[in-house]
Amino acid sequence: MNENGVRGNNPASTKTLNGTGVMENGFHHVNGNVSSYPAKAKSRRQRWDVKPSEMANNTLNPIRAIVDGMKLTPNPEKSMIALSIGDPTVFGNLPTDDAVLEAMKDAITSQKFNGYAPSVGYLKSRQALANFYRCPEAPLEAEDVILTSGCSQAIDLAISVLCNAGDNILVPCPGFSLYKTLAVSMGIKVKFYNLQPENSWEANLQHLESLIDERTSCLIVTNPSNPCGSVFSKKHLQKILKVASRHCVPILADEIYSDMVFPGCTSPSMASLSSDVPVLSCGGLAKRWLVPGWRMGWILIHDRNNIFGSEIRQGLVKLSQRILGACSIVQGALECILNNTPQSFFNSTISFLKSNAEICFSELSTIPGLNPVMPSGAMYLMVGIEMDHFPDFKNDVDFTEQLVTEQSVFCLPASAFEYPNFFRIVVTVPEEMMVEACARIREFCQHHYRSCSRDSNDLDQ
Amino acid sequence: MNENGVRGNNPASTKTLNGTGVMENGFHHVNGNVSSYPAKAKSRRQRWDVKPSEMANNTLNPIRAIVDGMKLTPNPEKSMIALSIGDPTVFGNLPTDDAVLEAMKDAITSQKFNGYAPSVGYLKSRQALANFYRCPEAPLEAEDVILTSGCSQAIDLAISVLCNAGDNILVPCPGFSLYKTLAVSMGIKVKFYNLQPENSWEANLQHLESLIDERTSCLIVTNPSNPCGSVFSKKHLQKILKVASRHCVPILADEIYSDMVFPGCTSPSMASLSSDVPVLSCGGLAKRWLVPGWRMGWILIHDRNNIFGSEIRQGLVKLSQRILGACSIVQGALECILNNTPQSFFNSTISFLKSNAEICFSELSTIPGLNPVMPSGAMYLMVGIEMDHFPDFKNDVDFTEQLVTEQSVFCLPASAFEYPNFFRIVVTVPEEMMVEACARIREFCQHHYRSCSRDSNDLDQ
Ligand SMILES: Cc1ncc(COP(=O)(O)O)c(C=O)c1O
Ligand SMILES: Cc1ncc(COP(=O)(O)O)c(C=O)c1O
Repeated sequence: MNENGVRGNNPASTKTLNGTGVMENGFHHVNGNVSSYPAKAKSRRQRWDVKPSEMANNTLNPIRAIVDGMKLTPNPEKSMIALSIGDPTVFGNLPTDDAVLEAMKDAITSQKFNGYAPSVGYLKSRQALANFYRCPEAPLEAEDVILTSGCSQAIDLAISVLCNAGDNILVPCPGFSLYKTLAVSMGIKVKFYNLQPENSWEANLQHLESLIDERTSCLIVTNPSNPCGSVFSKKHLQKILKVASRHCVPILADEIYSDMVFPGCTSPSMASLSSDVPVLSCGGLAKRWLVPGWRMGWILIHDRNNIFGSEIRQGLVKLSQRILGACSIVQGALECILNNTPQSFFNSTISFLKSNAEICFSELSTIPGLNPVMPSGAMYLMVGIEMDHFPDFKNDVDFTEQLVTEQSVFCLPASAFEYPNFFRIVVTVPEEMMVEACARIREFCQHHYRSCSRDSNDLDQ
Repeated sequence: MNENGVRGNNPASTKTLNGTGVMENGFHHVNGNVSSYPAKAKSRRQRWDVKPSEMANNTLNPIRAIVDGMKLTPNPEKSMIALSIGDPTVFGNLPTDDAVLEAMKDAITSQKFNGYAPSVGYLKSRQALANFYRCPEAPLEAEDVILTSGCSQAIDLAISVLCNAGDNILVPCPGFSLYKTLAVSMGIKVKFYNLQPENSWEANLQHLESLIDERTSCLIVTNPSNPCGSVFSKKHLQKILKVASRHCVPILADEIYSDMVFPGCTSPSMASLSSDVPVLSCGGLAKRWLVPGWRMGWILIHDRNNIFGSEIRQGLVKLSQRILGACSIVQGALECILNNTPQSFFNSTISFLKSNAEICFSELSTIPGLNPVMPSGAMYLMVGIEMDHFPDFKNDVDFTEQLVTEQSVFCLPASAFEYPNFFRIVVTVPEEMMVEACARIREFCQHHYRSCSRDSNDLDQ
């Protein structure tokens, strides 16, 4: 008998394995419930044929797909200015606060944060986040917080817990491309609801509502917005909530840019305005604390009316156990980061972003053929291209590609956000680069602009 | 005309939205291809019904399922000794090396690693890993390395790229439970191949081979093993490779415990022995560098025969873009961590683990009714329970539960690894706790042991 209390089973017939002469001990595990192992000539694979899974094939990154397809050859006579990268740290002009760095070093020195954290994060760190984000209208406890590896994993978990293959989700257009990337890879359908540039990028609620059906399992609201830099008013958020409430659709609020709003503007959280619609608010340190590489994100579960109940919470906990979440050092530093980063740090980031956005907006506003939309927050600005006036170019991709070729300025074509005929400018670059970039864009547009008969008088045609 | 060059479409009929009096601008996006938005009374959801997805429901954690179901009430007269936790840092007796902490602090101070890293990791860090792990038989370049959020994400990506729903994977039994957790959540079937305790936990190759069919998309080999602490010989690894080669099944080598082998034993990497079978080797800093919370893992792609080709590599890159990988600070520190951690650090960890394992083994070997299996590496030891001699207990769960109640010693029942009638001991606890725990286990067993007539003489029955 072996340790499992099962008698050895070692028939002579199984001693030679497929003619290789390998002698095998026939003992096997009690759980195996296989009493003999017939040779399987039948269904043996005869040659190598390893292909990526459907999920891998269906994991599409529109930004990569578009950018990789572009011929980006800068003008050798002009230094490259990339206004395309949604990473506020690349130019070195926006360092994080010293308090943030100190908190990290202390966490390392303490040696208290080298082991596994719970899959949903340290209780103390979750408590610190609850304290930081709770408000009277939207109370939060530690148990309402799940720490994740960046806001991206927060979004992944939120979609994963709410949606099955065959369901659909409502996604803003233009919008951050990850929603679609994740959804499509999981067999979830994406329906885009239109944001309206002529209306400070407010959602077209009628369009939004028309898209909802019984398989709509989640409405994603990005506020403040990437790529628009827009900030919804309280009133508009309330209207969105009404639609969600009427159709009983939970909200995934992507609030990674929360509190990154220009002075004079406010952005209440979705959850603070909701009395019934349950909200998974996704956020992180990436943007406001200017440390996107650290991969510290979170989900704040708001469920005033107990609609998620314990089931969705349990589902999130279970999903968090798949790969575990954020780095324990960053988790360990989180409480100090939240409590010790001075308001002045946030203020100076915001006033820099606002000033840069204003420079960019006022410059581009006076360029015939371009229609920039002034942002109210985040770190982006969208610019409409009146393609009719630029007959040299097929579309926004062509336009921005040629802008690199001639002027060494790279802006992301908004086709990457499912929104052709626009491009996105990131306003985190140093001011002098922004000024220079705008001058080059002006030169480029002046060079290619054609006044367009169709527009000047429709009756001519 | 709006910025998209599309005429406004604002029919009077759409001005009032479902009687709420909300006035909507009917402009809409050119991509929307919806020209009017009919009210949808038909398929509107009438009440809230938010349920976790199938994936959430199918994300099962056997360790949690079993442990949460146990009544763990320690004996108040004895301090608790947990031999159950696979986290080497919990007792504080196994700190990481100072060089590792210094590398992290330098990475923070440099401020060079706050931004987004490429989704597969910094090139320099990947290069450092390639240098660290390459050998003549298994060359590695930076492009063969993908950094991940812990070895768990490495396993997740590897399974995700190789397997479709409906496929099956071969998983060692007993084995680390994450493989099944991930696979089942993705609709992938798990087939367990038996490891043989009476044979130093070598795989039953015949059983393994009998399980392979045309939908077998991956063979997982964990070496050294959790939960067994076993280390496969070169010869055994070669035999496994032969089976994989014969059936054209790629290997996921979970080598998170690589090089954690006791003196006198060697553990060549799977890839160093393979000339044809492609291998995704998953590893990380967690165990050998004793920093599991930092979530630094990797995949090393070995594909000598170009069977994965560029497709599987591209698939991994695409999957890595979903949530991005490891914390940029740890990535930034990686080169120094790999190059500066002294061999003496590894040696002293190993000699501690070996000594503790020997103490535990020699103590438990002399306890009637227990059959410990001496490990050769990693940080675990499996103990068989002759259940016939412990009629007080139904199974390993019952046995270990009562061990807590009476002796305040907690060992993980191996049912958590699909292997009943065993329990797993983690040998990272301080030596005096190990000694004390063994003494208590002895007392417990002596108290409950019954010499069993069935075993002594079958003919009596
Ligand atoms: C709207 C939005 N959500 C989420 C993210 C991802 O955040 P993280 O880097 O924390 O994963 C981004 C990053 O650019 C973003 O713009
Ligand atoms: C065999 C095995 N593989 C993978 C892991 C996961 O490693 P990580 O913590 O780096 O995700 C573990 C952790 O215990 C393990 O035992």
